[in-house]
Amino acid sequence: MNHMQAMLDEIYNEVLPLLGEGRVADYIPALAKVDPNQVGIAVCDLHGNTYTAGDANTAFSIQSISKLLTLVLGMEIYGDALWKCVDKEPSGQAFNSLIQLEMEHGIPRNPFINAGALKVCDMLYSRLATPKQRMKEMMCKLSGNAHVTCNHTVADSERMHGARSAAMAYLMKAFKNFDNDVDDVLDAYYFACALEMNCVDLAKAFLFLANQGKTLDAKHTILTTTQTKQVNALMATCGMYNQAGDFAYRVGLPGKSGVGGGIVAIIPNHLSICVWSPELNDTGNSLIGIEILERFTARIGKSIY
Amino acid sequence: MNHMQAMLDEIYNEVLPLLGEGRVADYIPALAKVDPNQVGIAVCDLHGNTYTAGDANTAFSIQSISKLLTLVLGMEIYGDALWKCVDKEPSGQAFNSLIQLEMEHGIPRNPFINAGALKVCDMLYSRLATPKQRMKEMMCKLSGNAHVTCNHTVADSERMHGARSAAMAYLMKAFKNFDNDVDDVLDAYYFACALEMNCVDLAKAFLFLANQGKTLDAKHTILTTTQTKQVNALMATCGMYNQAGDFAYRVGLPGKSGVGGGIVAIIPNHLSICVWSPELNDTGNSLIGIEILERFTARIGKSIY
Amino acid sequence: MNHMQAMLDEIYNEVLPLLGEGRVADYIPALAKVDPNQVGIAVCDLHGNTYTAGDANTAFSIQSISKLLTLVLGMEIYGDALWKCVDKEPSGQAFNSLIQLEMEHGIPRNPFINAGALKVCDMLYSRLATPKQRMKEMMCKLSGNAHVTCNHTVADSERMHGARSAAMAYLMKAFKNFDNDVDDVLDAYYFACALEMNCVDLAKAFLFLANQGKTLDAKHTILTTTQTKQVNALMATCGMYNQAGDFAYRVGLPGKSGVGGGIVAIIPNHLSICVWSPELNDTGNSLIGIEILERFTARIGKSIY
Amino acid sequence: MNHMQAMLDEIYNEVLPLLGEGRVADYIPALAKVDPNQVGIAVCDLHGNTYTAGDANTAFSIQSISKLLTLVLGMEIYGDALWKCVDKEPSGQAFNSLIQLEMEHGIPRNPFINAGALKVCDMLYSRLATPKQRMKEMMCKLSGNAHVTCNHTVADSERMHGARSAAMAYLMKAFKNFDNDVDDVLDAYYFACALEMNCVDLAKAFLFLANQGKTLDAKHTILTTTQTKQVNALMATCGMYNQAGDFAYRVGLPGKSGVGGGIVAIIPNHLSICVWSPELNDTGNSLIGIEILERFTARIGKSIY
Repeated sequence: MNHMQAMLDEIYNEVLPLLGEGRVADYIPALAKVDPNQVGIAVCDLHGNTYTAGDANTAFSIQSISKLLTLVLGMEIYGDALWKCVDKEPSGQAFNSLIQLEMEHGIPRNPFINAGALKVCDMLYSRLATPKQRMKEMMCKLSGNAHVTCNHTVADSERMHGARSAAMAYLMKAFKNFDNDVDDVLDAYYFACALEMNCVDLAKAFLFLANQGKTLDAKHTILTTTQTKQVNALMATCGMYNQAGDFAYRVGLPGKSGVGGGIVAIIPNHLSICVWSPELNDTGNSLIGIEILERFTARIGKSIY
Repeated sequence: MNHMQAMLDEIYNEVLPLLGEGRVADYIPALAKVDPNQVGIAVCDLHGNTYTAGDANTAFSIQSISKLLTLVLGMEIYGDALWKCVDKEPSGQAFNSLIQLEMEHGIPRNPFINAGALKVCDMLYSRLATPKQRMKEMMCKLSGNAHVTCNHTVADSERMHGARSAAMAYLMKAFKNFDNDVDDVLDAYYFACALEMNCVDLAKAFLFLANQGKTLDAKHTILTTTQTKQVNALMATCGMYNQAGDFAYRVGLPGKSGVGGGIVAIIPNHLSICVWSPELNDTGNSLIGIEILERFTARIGKSIY
Repeated sequence: MNHMQAMLDEIYNEVLPLLGEGRVADYIPALAKVDPNQVGIAVCDLHGNTYTAGDANTAFSIQSISKLLTLVLGMEIYGDALWKCVDKEPSGQAFNSLIQLEMEHGIPRNPFINAGALKVCDMLYSRLATPKQRMKEMMCKLSGNAHVTCNHTVADSERMHGARSAAMAYLMKAFKNFDNDVDDVLDAYYFACALEMNCVDLAKAFLFLANQGKTLDAKHTILTTTQTKQVNALMATCGMYNQAGDFAYRVGLPGKSGVGGGIVAIIPNHLSICVWSPELNDTGNSLIGIEILERFTARIGKSIY
Repeated sequence: MNHMQAMLDEIYNEVLPLLGEGRVADYIPALAKVDPNQVGIAVCDLHGNTYTAGDANTAFSIQSISKLLTLVLGMEIYGDALWKCVDKEPSGQAFNSLIQLEMEHGIPRNPFINAGALKVCDMLYSRLATPKQRMKEMMCKLSGNAHVTCNHTVADSERMHGARSAAMAYLMKAFKNFDNDVDDVLDAYYFACALEMNCVDLAKAFLFLANQGKTLDAKHTILTTTQTKQVNALMATCGMYNQAGDFAYRVGLPGKSGVGGGIVAIIPNHLSICVWSPELNDTGNSLIGIEILERFTARIGKSIY
């Protein structure tokens, strides 16, 4: 599809002037050092085509996009029992507030806010012998890139500055909604956040969410059709922190972002897209990433709404 | 489509045993008196077909489904300027809390919570000479039912028990986000809530949201294609009070509910559906209504995700 | 007591250089116009002596000092039944937040925050034929000044800018903790706030709180000994908005302040003192007033602690 | 003073029938095992007399009364600099909420709520080589009982169930208001809570707060006169968790309670009193202890108000 390639190139060129308008995440030194002047786009469709623009092959810290991975693993392992320990409602709050967590008695609002992903990691830790290994293997398998790695400098830096995550975990423990040792679970959580992948890896990895849960070669069923819809529904309502409504309004796709500047989005039954640019807007989502996605859905005339 | 009719009949029969599991809204006497043993379904598709089951022709109090009407009117009149006074994010809160409204300085989270709809009514009041007349006319025009009426007993009852709405309006006024006399705006707001329509009326009225903003006869453009997507996006993220995530997860459609027991939902480019049953679940949405919609999207194999 | 007079003069001169460091209340125009460069002190002891310094005879808007009057009236009329509708705990919040009021189901934290005083006025309104008249008469009787008057320009200005108070009253009504018409009660509430008295008036008026509830001439028992202690206890824990702890720490007396810049304080079994200076600190209490009181208790070597 | 002894005996007998109306703290097994049927009273006056009734010589877990000890140590070491890291306002909240701590950016409301005492312990840890040893020595010195000991079973049990305290400490760390290792500080904090003393020990230990900061033999100045008033002021406004206002209203003394069932209270320039009974009321204070103190101040006709 020549048309798709031309469109990505066009959008890429249009958004470049926005470089400098956002701010690279600086809560940990290891992320603050990333060169902000990078923009990548990768699209994978169900015909097996991959289209890219810009820095689509540069690896970056996937950060909270890992919450999509941990949710998928959690649904695989626990099925509906997952939802006894974590809710599935938008938070209507900043992404790492403890206020709501206390008011709701230690049940995190959804698996895409930090508290929710910590709880999912706690559950994975209860069932998996080597949760970190499993996370990495799954990313390698899904992306077809055998060399996905964790940046341990980033993971260590997260741990050093991770007092708020520890506070959340202990608060859940106080409500008897956290089963394992806090430090052990945080270790797995930071490992997942510090995985490094590029736009092509991520678009490929999550293409199954556009394919009713199956890998493109139909060899693997990652999730059932129903579960796939459920994950997409959760992304659509909760995937963009406190910008979920605005993202639905402007872009109109299920998506999950990370403070590394990446966003994965899905057009069910059509394609997956991953965009990346390190500068964030006020809600912690990639400023240029959202701009790209907005233009993309407007131009192809397709959104879920 | 014989198939559709058979499916609605089947679902109707399946959900009847759930009568008695929810609770009719009782915060105002006029609503508490409704016979709970009623279930209606109406589907309108883009081919001009209408399918019904059960009490699809019995009028009920549309209550917060009117917030969809006021939003559409607000977007027609104000365009994007509407969003200066009301946000478009899920609230993550019970539907009539003042806590969030105060913490966010009098800017309501979205136009589908009570505070947001009050603010939209305040804006309509600033521009329309006869806002109540206009609301009613629009509902008549869209539904093709010239006899849509307001139940003044219900409206009066709402006003009598409306201290919380008045508190919200005054709190917004304290933050300089409310321009007109509180009582005047409440009068228009309660009028809209107390409009009475049946499932067929409502499915017809909002079919334009499945038709890119145009009425089926293509004579009227109610909203632009983009605005239509935006309204659907808002319904998908904010339309079901504090059950938005669960509704997306189970049903997977943009929808708007009211405490009268009605829910309108949209499958973009396909159809509109209105379900009604007065008994509510804990979040104030029709218990049987959601059950019907869940079975409906599962059986037709279509949702937006 | 020459000594006392000398001390007041000394303190008066010491604090004058602080003029300009605070900010006159500006939420209503009528208050914002007050000349900020005024400082008054009046002390009344149980021997019948009155000592003054500075602008002790200049009348000012008593504002929330009226909450002490309404509490005393409420205790006279209702006795312990008062505490069914209003609590007696420090709020730990800004003085007019609705958040706590909603979280605590419409029961105001104490009678000295705005919501609490509104509720007390609501209760007075239920029992008194002419509550405004009664308030004024009581202030005239207690102060020995027959000419205490309400500044209606101020009262009207409060009403014009009183959306937040209306919001509180309606929120209490929503919780069924407000019995009368909101506008009627607000009228009485603003009347009390807009009474004008000077430091001498106020020190005299509340001297009974230092005299176990009796007027100095022993002709009238305003409150029982126990009730008097209770009022002093409430002032000590709740009388200074969100500066109660700091005021106890620095000054060490039961006291009640108003945004007009006045503060009444009591040394039980010794004396009453009223200080006044219009400029407020960040918590809405008279900046210079607190400074005077701190020096006063340090110098006389007496506080309640 | 025969009179005092007779009064204590009388009150002791009056309150015994209230046994069974409260509930022993059960959040840790080690405390839940305490025999609830115990009531002790000890009064120390400035003439060197000690009066007792009931189980005044039975040691109990001092729990949060230790917060008075840590505050005194903190004021000795840091002086006013202490207040940069902890505020001195009543919390208006349950005693261990994280909501307020987050809303106020990690600055605890006062040194008598758990978060505040944790922060004070953190500061002690920064300056003292052996904080636990120092705490114990001070208690021995002040009480004249060389055998004050820590119950390590209780301390271990606190640690095992201390997820909420850990959450608070980490949340303060996230706001950069916690300097030392969380586990280290918690260790010292739980040590202080698990000290065991009896009513006589505690009344003697804190008699200096009724004596302007000096020990009765005048050999030691624990705090300056001003600091002593400040500590009493803090106890009066913040010492009884969310019952501070009610305690002031009913009892009228500065006091500090612990969930072990002890309460220390002070009549400045007169006496100290310690009461103990393990059953607590809904706010976590000794139900019978408060009853004793209310009768005590009523009968001797002395309170601070």
